[in-house]
Amino acid sequence: MRILILGGDGYLGWPQSLYLSSKGHDVTIFDNLSRRYFDLERGFNSLIPIQILHKRVAAWNEVSGRKINICIGDTMEYEILASAFRDVQPEAVIHFAEQRSAPYSMIDRKHAVFTQTNNVIGTLNVLYAMKEFVPDCHLVKLGTMGEYGTPNIDIEEGFIEVHHKGRSDSLPFPKQPGSFYHLSKVHDSHNIMFCCKIWRLRATDLNQGVVYGVETDETTQDPRLATRFDYDQIYGTALNRFCTQAAAGYPLSVYGKGQQTRGYINLKDTIRCIELAITAPPNEGEYRVFNQFTEQFSLIELAEMVAEESKHLGLEAQIQHIPNPRVEAEQHYYNAAHTKLIDLGLEPHLLNGTVLESLMKIAIKRREQIDASQIMPTVNWRKAKNDIFQAGS
Amino acid sequence: MRILILGGDGYLGWPQSLYLSSKGHDVTIFDNLSRRYFDLERGFNSLIPIQILHKRVAAWNEVSGRKINICIGDTMEYEILASAFRDVQPEAVIHFAEQRSAPYSMIDRKHAVFTQTNNVIGTLNVLYAMKEFVPDCHLVKLGTMGEYGTPNIDIEEGFIEVHHKGRSDSLPFPKQPGSFYHLSKVHDSHNIMFCCKIWRLRATDLNQGVVYGVETDETTQDPRLATRFDYDQIYGTALNRFCTQAAAGYPLSVYGKGQQTRGYINLKDTIRCIELAITAPPNEGEYRVFNQFTEQFSLIELAEMVAEESKHLGLEAQIQHIPNPRVEAEQHYYNAAHTKLIDLGLEPHLLNGTVLESLMKIAIKRREQIDASQIMPTVNWRKAKNDIFQAGS
Repeated sequence: MRILILGGDGYLGWPQSLYLSSKGHDVTIFDNLSRRYFDLERGFNSLIPIQILHKRVAAWNEVSGRKINICIGDTMEYEILASAFRDVQPEAVIHFAEQRSAPYSMIDRKHAVFTQTNNVIGTLNVLYAMKEFVPDCHLVKLGTMGEYGTPNIDIEEGFIEVHHKGRSDSLPFPKQPGSFYHLSKVHDSHNIMFCCKIWRLRATDLNQGVVYGVETDETTQDPRLATRFDYDQIYGTALNRFCTQAAAGYPLSVYGKGQQTRGYINLKDTIRCIELAITAPPNEGEYRVFNQFTEQFSLIELAEMVAEESKHLGLEAQIQHIPNPRVEAEQHYYNAAHTKLIDLGLEPHLLNGTVLESLMKIAIKRREQIDASQIMPTVNWRKAKNDIFQAGS
Repeated sequence: MRILILGGDGYLGWPQSLYLSSKGHDVTIFDNLSRRYFDLERGFNSLIPIQILHKRVAAWNEVSGRKINICIGDTMEYEILASAFRDVQPEAVIHFAEQRSAPYSMIDRKHAVFTQTNNVIGTLNVLYAMKEFVPDCHLVKLGTMGEYGTPNIDIEEGFIEVHHKGRSDSLPFPKQPGSFYHLSKVHDSHNIMFCCKIWRLRATDLNQGVVYGVETDETTQDPRLATRFDYDQIYGTALNRFCTQAAAGYPLSVYGKGQQTRGYINLKDTIRCIELAITAPPNEGEYRVFNQFTEQFSLIELAEMVAEESKHLGLEAQIQHIPNPRVEAEQHYYNAAHTKLIDLGLEPHLLNGTVLESLMKIAIKRREQIDASQIMPTVNWRKAKNDIFQAGS
């Protein structure tokens, strides 16, 4: 299958590209390298060294004999994006090319505006390019479980049957996102659903949980094929931050009460889910939503798991509750459906001691490079201006 | 009260500004004159002549002795917008400053991108300016009933109590908007609700029906105080188009079956509704939604009313069903709540023969200036490129 992977140089896009290439698909990566630019700008870095795109693609060719095509471009520049669709004629497009950090979107007005413009208009451009050049192509779009927020009812997969005053309808599940980033994904979902309706496009919207892990069957074949490990306050997820803090001998910083519960998924499963989605595409005009996660954990559960695993590795990790920089419910009901991908054949890799141990060993191996000033949150949801340069100062 | 009216030079913004000025409020109009620019660009024009902003403001001063302040600026330019908030220190801001046409947003990619960028980012800028300079200010935001689409259940005012698998929650009403314009309003609603939550702003989101009429107690005091009458395919609503077609001797063009039902409201009521909203502001941190319309009509009902009224005026109007350029349900359930503004004291002016007669007489009086080529739809929802220059060619 000809597959265009937007954002194929990122944390998820890269292992996804390798995986689909290894399965014999004809993969083209479209990326503007913006994630790397952010590191340059702020002095952040992946704890695992990663190669520049051209070198990692060359390494993959050397290791596997397979070729991945590269197109350097921005979804905001329609001419370049459209030419990629026209030239590649993809049968599936996987869209990772969005600003993906909630704290980034909350830094200040400029970052909020950038996030919503880049994500919403970039996706509009993708939809127009599909309509113009490949109307039968299947769009696989990365959304987030964070679109739903934390309603006091079960979360369904995209739609809910509502019974009201003696009538009923299947309606889009109400959304209560918790950052300008999460909002951008909600906006995308509405725009995509509409384009499927008016232009008969086909799309799968993946409301993905928090992804953890860095190792796949492909990335581990050569150090040059590694993907990112982020532990900073902007791009690092809680689990990575906890592992890094434990390795460096700092307390595990839990935001607020720590009962915030979310869906999680192993990197190996997320790349498999997307393969399942593209091999069973939706019908013409169909917009479908899958909740792409395998387990639910609260923050405090994650912290306790890391503390427990630390003991086995000879470390002593304290758990420290710090004031929550976000505005979110710290104790709430959470029960989200996630059966559609299982029905398609997903066999989950769950978060167990072995997985945690491998993550922690990555952090321990590189503990000298850990910059503790990058971990603690300085972006506060309640403030309209957060100068993240102040981190650690 | 110090009131900042964003988009105060437009069809609704202008009579709103006059009305609130007449009530003794200190009114400042902020406008980028974009609606007038669109006319220049496309060769459209209001059927009723309107004065340029500076002249109509001077006329109002002459007629009433009252002063309205002017600030020429764009919500997309944060520095100018922010300085308006800083200088005016408004207690209420009424936000009409959005691209307001569904067909405009469906012309092509550039118009879709413009509509979503201008509306969503412009509103984000308004929210940041409020947070920065007037956190207690009340935002009154013009949304649309079109945000809801046509669900098969009763439409409530912004939120719905959902009972699901033995649990319940009051959740944002699911949205199914029908154009990139309507989508932009849905995006706005989500962004505003979030800012009320994190920054404790206060906002009223008015899901407004289709507004008709041009006469208010203020606009009729002097011809120089008139507001727009649009009948073209882009900015003219169905009722204006029908009146114009009847006056000029053309058939009334009904899109598709004509059972499409929507909420409608008289211009006099819409300006009163906004006064009611600002005099009973929401609490700190509160985001509330009012459905701002007074009656429901189907397209065919409107056409029949115009045809009937035509007879009284000595005209003979035929009704013609034409292929629907939009993608929408042409027969559907529609029953939308609209009690909150009534509870605040609204006394509706309904659409009766007298109102229709006055609208039709406007069109008849100027029938020589009617450009029939502007009325018929050339923007088709199913196409990604619609060249509206082809209108009438």
